[in-house]
Amino acid sequence: RKAGFSGAKTERMFELMDGFLKNDPVSLQKDILHHVEYTVARSRFSFDDFEAYQALSHSVRDRLIERWHDTQQHFKKKDPKRRSLSNSVINLGIKDQCAEALSQLGFEYEVLAEQEGDAALGNGGLARLSACQMDSLATLDFPAWGYGLRYQYGLFRQIIIDGFQHEQPDYWLNFGNPWEIERVHVSYPVKFYGSVKEEVVNGKKCKVWIPGETVEAVAYDNPIPGYGTRNTINLRLWAAKPSEGLDIESYNTGDYINAIVNRQKAEIISNVLYPDDRSYQGKELRLKQQYFFVSASLQDIIRRFKDMHNNFDEFPDKVALQLNDTHPSISVVELMRVLLDEEHLSWKRAWNIVCKVFTFTTHTVLPEALEKVPMDLFETVLPRHLQIIYDINFAFMEELKNKIGKDYVRLSRMSIIEEGAVKNIRMANLSIVCSHTVNGVSRAHSELLKTRVFMDFYELWPEKFQYKTNGVTQRRWIVVSNPSLCALISKWLRTESWIHDVDLLTHLKNHASNPELQYEWKMVKKINKMRLAEYIETMSGVKVSLDAMFDVQIKRIHEYKRQFLNILGVIHRYDCIKNMEESDRRKVVPRVCIIGGKAPPGYEIAKKIIKLCHAVAEKINNDTDIGDLLKLVFIPDYNVSVAELVIPGSDLSQHISTAGHEASGTGSMKFLMNGCLLLATADGSTNEIIEEIGAENMFIFGAKMNEVPKLREKESTIKAPLQFRRVVRMVRDGYFGFKDYFKSLCDTVENGKDFYLLGSDFTSYLEAQAAADRAYVDKEKWCKMSILSTAGSGRFSSDRTIEDYAEKTWGIKPCKLPL
Amino acid sequence: RKAGFSGAKTERMFELMDGFLKNDPVSLQKDILHHVEYTVARSRFSFDDFEAYQALSHSVRDRLIERWHDTQQHFKKKDPKRRSLSNSVINLGIKDQCAEALSQLGFEYEVLAEQEGDAALGNGGLARLSACQMDSLATLDFPAWGYGLRYQYGLFRQIIIDGFQHEQPDYWLNFGNPWEIERVHVSYPVKFYGSVKEEVVNGKKCKVWIPGETVEAVAYDNPIPGYGTRNTINLRLWAAKPSEGLDIESYNTGDYINAIVNRQKAEIISNVLYPDDRSYQGKELRLKQQYFFVSASLQDIIRRFKDMHNNFDEFPDKVALQLNDTHPSISVVELMRVLLDEEHLSWKRAWNIVCKVFTFTTHTVLPEALEKVPMDLFETVLPRHLQIIYDINFAFMEELKNKIGKDYVRLSRMSIIEEGAVKNIRMANLSIVCSHTVNGVSRAHSELLKTRVFMDFYELWPEKFQYKTNGVTQRRWIVVSNPSLCALISKWLRTESWIHDVDLLTHLKNHASNPELQYEWKMVKKINKMRLAEYIETMSGVKVSLDAMFDVQIKRIHEYKRQFLNILGVIHRYDCIKNMEESDRRKVVPRVCIIGGKAPPGYEIAKKIIKLCHAVAEKINNDTDIGDLLKLVFIPDYNVSVAELVIPGSDLSQHISTAGHEASGTGSMKFLMNGCLLLATADGSTNEIIEEIGAENMFIFGAKMNEVPKLREKESTIKAPLQFRRVVRMVRDGYFGFKDYFKSLCDTVENGKDFYLLGSDFTSYLEAQAAADRAYVDKEKWCKMSILSTAGSGRFSSDRTIEDYAEKTWGIKPCKLPL
Repeated sequence: RKAGFSGAKTERMFELMDGFLKNDPVSLQKDILHHVEYTVARSRFSFDDFEAYQALSHSVRDRLIERWHDTQQHFKKKDPKRRSLSNSVINLGIKDQCAEALSQLGFEYEVLAEQEGDAALGNGGLARLSACQMDSLATLDFPAWGYGLRYQYGLFRQIIIDGFQHEQPDYWLNFGNPWEIERVHVSYPVKFYGSVKEEVVNGKKCKVWIPGETVEAVAYDNPIPGYGTRNTINLRLWAAKPSEGLDIESYNTGDYINAIVNRQKAEIISNVLYPDDRSYQGKELRLKQQYFFVSASLQDIIRRFKDMHNNFDEFPDKVALQLNDTHPSISVVELMRVLLDEEHLSWKRAWNIVCKVFTFTTHTVLPEALEKVPMDLFETVLPRHLQIIYDINFAFMEELKNKIGKDYVRLSRMSIIEEGAVKNIRMANLSIVCSHTVNGVSRAHSELLKTRVFMDFYELWPEKFQYKTNGVTQRRWIVVSNPSLCALISKWLRTESWIHDVDLLTHLKNHASNPELQYEWKMVKKINKMRLAEYIETMSGVKVSLDAMFDVQIKRIHEYKRQFLNILGVIHRYDCIKNMEESDRRKVVPRVCIIGGKAPPGYEIAKKIIKLCHAVAEKINNDTDIGDLLKLVFIPDYNVSVAELVIPGSDLSQHISTAGHEASGTGSMKFLMNGCLLLATADGSTNEIIEEIGAENMFIFGAKMNEVPKLREKESTIKAPLQFRRVVRMVRDGYFGFKDYFKSLCDTVENGKDFYLLGSDFTSYLEAQAAADRAYVDKEKWCKMSILSTAGSGRFSSDRTIEDYAEKTWGIKPCKLPL
Repeated sequence: RKAGFSGAKTERMFELMDGFLKNDPVSLQKDILHHVEYTVARSRFSFDDFEAYQALSHSVRDRLIERWHDTQQHFKKKDPKRRSLSNSVINLGIKDQCAEALSQLGFEYEVLAEQEGDAALGNGGLARLSACQMDSLATLDFPAWGYGLRYQYGLFRQIIIDGFQHEQPDYWLNFGNPWEIERVHVSYPVKFYGSVKEEVVNGKKCKVWIPGETVEAVAYDNPIPGYGTRNTINLRLWAAKPSEGLDIESYNTGDYINAIVNRQKAEIISNVLYPDDRSYQGKELRLKQQYFFVSASLQDIIRRFKDMHNNFDEFPDKVALQLNDTHPSISVVELMRVLLDEEHLSWKRAWNIVCKVFTFTTHTVLPEALEKVPMDLFETVLPRHLQIIYDINFAFMEELKNKIGKDYVRLSRMSIIEEGAVKNIRMANLSIVCSHTVNGVSRAHSELLKTRVFMDFYELWPEKFQYKTNGVTQRRWIVVSNPSLCALISKWLRTESWIHDVDLLTHLKNHASNPELQYEWKMVKKINKMRLAEYIETMSGVKVSLDAMFDVQIKRIHEYKRQFLNILGVIHRYDCIKNMEESDRRKVVPRVCIIGGKAPPGYEIAKKIIKLCHAVAEKINNDTDIGDLLKLVFIPDYNVSVAELVIPGSDLSQHISTAGHEASGTGSMKFLMNGCLLLATADGSTNEIIEEIGAENMFIFGAKMNEVPKLREKESTIKAPLQFRRVVRMVRDGYFGFKDYFKSLCDTVENGKDFYLLGSDFTSYLEAQAAADRAYVDKEKWCKMSILSTAGSGRFSSDRTIEDYAEKTWGIKPCKLPL
């Protein structure tokens, strides 16, 4: 259906277009006003900030689209191996021009940028990690495609009423999303339910899946620009729509309205993000989301492959598929199904392809937390896939028996199918068996995988196991969120190259003791603290002193992350100050303790921690006896925008999970880049940060990973330190009110049930806090430590992570669009 | 939040924009290519017809938006009394330029225009009537706003499988809708359920409605351009979205996912169009749709009123609200509620305003077909409204008793509340009581209202009753759908003014016998018949002869519209031809009988009529004995696009409802404008067409309206004519197969149950058909009749209807945007 592309016409089309859009302020102004009038459909004499934001976004989007076309065109020509907004302005390099254009029209760039809501399409660090990695993939010119679900409602908004968390759906799409491009004609049917029949096709027996429900997956494209390059890659998100296919049965019952209303329910599949990535309920909707995502993405990848190739044996040369945790692991089975049932390859040939295509990264630290799907649910929703899993597992078990003999205990541990009263599919085992590489996300995590989580598999296939420490992008976490620091770094390094060549940051070490840099460094911190202090006052009404140490813990609320430990420490500090002589009080380093984070909606204990934080804050902040010596603030609705404000304004940040529970942790890296000092346990990636920054420039405390199991064994027999028992007692006795409500929370750390070892780590936690106090008093020393933190953060850029993956796991090379 | 509109900035903004978009082909080409690259986000070297259509639509939309802004601005300045795409190209006057621009790019305008689906936002003639009226309102420069629902799925698509109708939802929005502008910030909360409390506000007792559910109504604007004027008015459609309000109860139960999925159901309200406007089930969803529409529209109207006025007594001077049938009649109660409970006006003052604002047009002919809502449903969904209805009814009953005394039978007939085992609200009575004018839609309909449907009310308030015969717009039904005829008319009238001054068409009468015009007239008809013949062959595989008379009946399938009579007539014709001598066959006028229309999904008899049509067609079309003498074709999925193709290609059209059952009928008017001869009963507006065209230029048959009641009484005692019994017997005996299936259909016209009088009208129907055959043989005579039909169609333009309404019912004046 393409028409009209003969030579003369093409020439005419070429003539008619001006080449690239111009980026001078006047051109930008014209474009913005054009979008105000024709896209937003407002008069150019009457539009508000939000409408100006929409018009600006569309103007930026136009420029993204230009580069993005060229990138896709170029990838197509080169056919490399592939893999699947304020940021845009920075990466396009047109921030200053936009700001100037707007200011002449009477608008402020910063005000407009704030009109944009977060696209909260994931939850916690895992989701933000993907965003950082996409940014690095684009910047490093890798030919990559990202896939995801276009959730109608992203992660819930956290509303605090009387100190209790309430969840409100995030209707982020209600106000439109200028960054996405709806591809009405890029859509694929996704099948569910039904049964499997056997048919003979060309003399061969074939399995044919007769689905019971078909839902349409429609593509929404989101261009992701690289920094310092014209390469602009694509994040394709899928939305569920009712299928247009004729469904005679349900439509001929006469009750037309009800039939439609039922069919409409298809859209629910992509409606809502599950708000907890650490607990997997065997819910039907969850499984349908996973398969919906996988099936649409694979159809898209295969369609593109078949456009240019006709031999599936070349598939692994052209496609590498990265499983980010087990959520998409059904795709290994789906690819088998397509190759067997639709492309009619033999089992052997299909299996050979699958094993070369997939790589698996796990983020799990505890064997019991691995995702399982009840078999009967699987059989109902994806009957053909269950058959294929049986076949894969049978072959694997046979192979294994040949290698290890009839060790049935071990065989049953490694089986993809978990036997028992309720049979389950083990998604991680499936992923390991079918992937050529299994990655951990930090060195420590890798050790856990080998010795605890996947011990059996490591013994079998040691060569499969690698690790790539997670990273974060300096473009988002310094350039976008801390422009003053960005300018300062560029000034002292005499180059902006560190923005894409992050190793250059180490050169800051040379100047760490330079008083001139230190002076400027402190000024930058002060500016960011002022911004944060203003925000705190607006949000909570609490006035905080800029002389105080800003001590921050922002992340998901979870028992293992030990926000409770932090709060108990604050209570201890409060208790100490209350009992101090006036003369001693003068020596106290003033603190603003900031906690923020969302609790998964069904997680009662996490919600109690939030309430406790508010109860303690209420007490402390209103105690005139204490004044500026101690404040406790809970920042509501923690998200990326809040992080961008809080992180640059922090002095100290806490990453205090029980050792062995955080697979990597990327929050600490963002603080590190912004010159915040870390108070941390030796968990996850912190071990590598210690190597890079030196323990002397951090405040490390608590049990080590290898000590934890023994401590747990002893825990019920050993008394927690007195200080610990005292502060817990204060909570238990109702010193902060809500005595009954907090009882079950106190129970989690007392009476031999202190699984996360708050009691046994408490003393060393207080010592680390005291060390931080002492260091803060010596301003030069503190500032040097701060500069060294930023200087050593280069290793934790997602650029390094992605380069590692590209070289050691995927085997792909950059494919740069010529200028 | 508006910023930056001081003098200097405004000047700068003015400078930056080029004034109006240009309409020369090169400018259009540039715009189209710009939209291909940046809006559709395709490369300018690779886009298909659909994408070109999207780009073209957006280019046209840009131009619409310009005029639309200016119109709204102008209306605002003048503050007149208001009332609530190929067409766009015509009305903008840029069709030729677009065609030229596209052809140079290698695309055909016609092909692109076909890419657009119908916006099937209503069903049957009533919905299309609104579209014609909006077109007339814009063209005649009236300051009007249209409101409606933005159904996710419009009227179902009709799929025919083995001759049976199946319904498929019409996912028209899946492919985007370039014509609408989403107004993310124009949204209103709409409340449902809950309870009513009494409160004291400023010392006055007030009723406060505490809703149980709140749904958000979001506006989608659709600019409607006038022809030959820059005025461009707005059709605002409402979509339901989940409310953003915090709903603590449902969100704190822990099951977050389920809570969201439940809340998501809000969207169902605007999801699906009820496919039958003649049968009203007391369904909750239907009532919610009606109130959703009414509440959002009234909030919008009141907001706009309050922007410029602060005294509600001026409301009737500035706002006239037209109730199109009883579907929005809850708005009278809603306006009372707002004035009483929210604006705190006294009952008397509020009632006084309401009575001056509303006018009511009914489309119903039978008292038993008037809409009723069960009281208990009403009480659940709209508890406060029920209270107000009680109060209105009480006042009305008191007034009535004073006038007519204690005639309880009559009082109970006129009451808004129907007593009985199941109590109901009579929506029509409510509308009449609260409106200052009640309109019928044709003179005949008006008689029915006075003597049958609203006899009691007519006796009480004769001055309220008026009628405005419906009309259709010549812009759609000649200019857009029959361009050859359009050119021919303009040539012979030596002006295009008839396009907005339709009375000029009468001048065609002067040339009706001119052989030159007749020659050209016949050529135009031939071209249109060729187009239709091609379509028939594509759709059904049946080849039809262009020499045959194309005899068309396209409209909703209903017993009262008597498609069954038509089919029985076809069977009779077939039977006659079969039994003819070869010599007589030569004299037979060849016919192509075309039937099209959708059956309401739950209407079994209507569906049987469709199947019968296919069964008879199967027999006749495959009978080599018959050849071109007779063909029967069913055109599937009848809609506006199909009508635009079929109507210009018809010779004869049938409008054969039992007299007294069609309130007006607008299909006949569309055929009339296109010079098709009518074979019709003296029902609805046909009576007025007879006055205008003369019975001698039509084929009128059947019982008159006043004869019908008597015929019904006698029906069971009189034998139907032999010819009729014979053809029904053929169906009954299985001559066309499906004997059992057709039994119940045959039962509806035999054994004294022939409610729609097919039997008693059959003889005169056959005579009218014979007269048409005779007339068709005399080509000159037929052509003259055809020209006279078009010449006399001016009275049936919606321009005339709207002028009548403006002057006699609404009291509004044109408000023309200066050039």
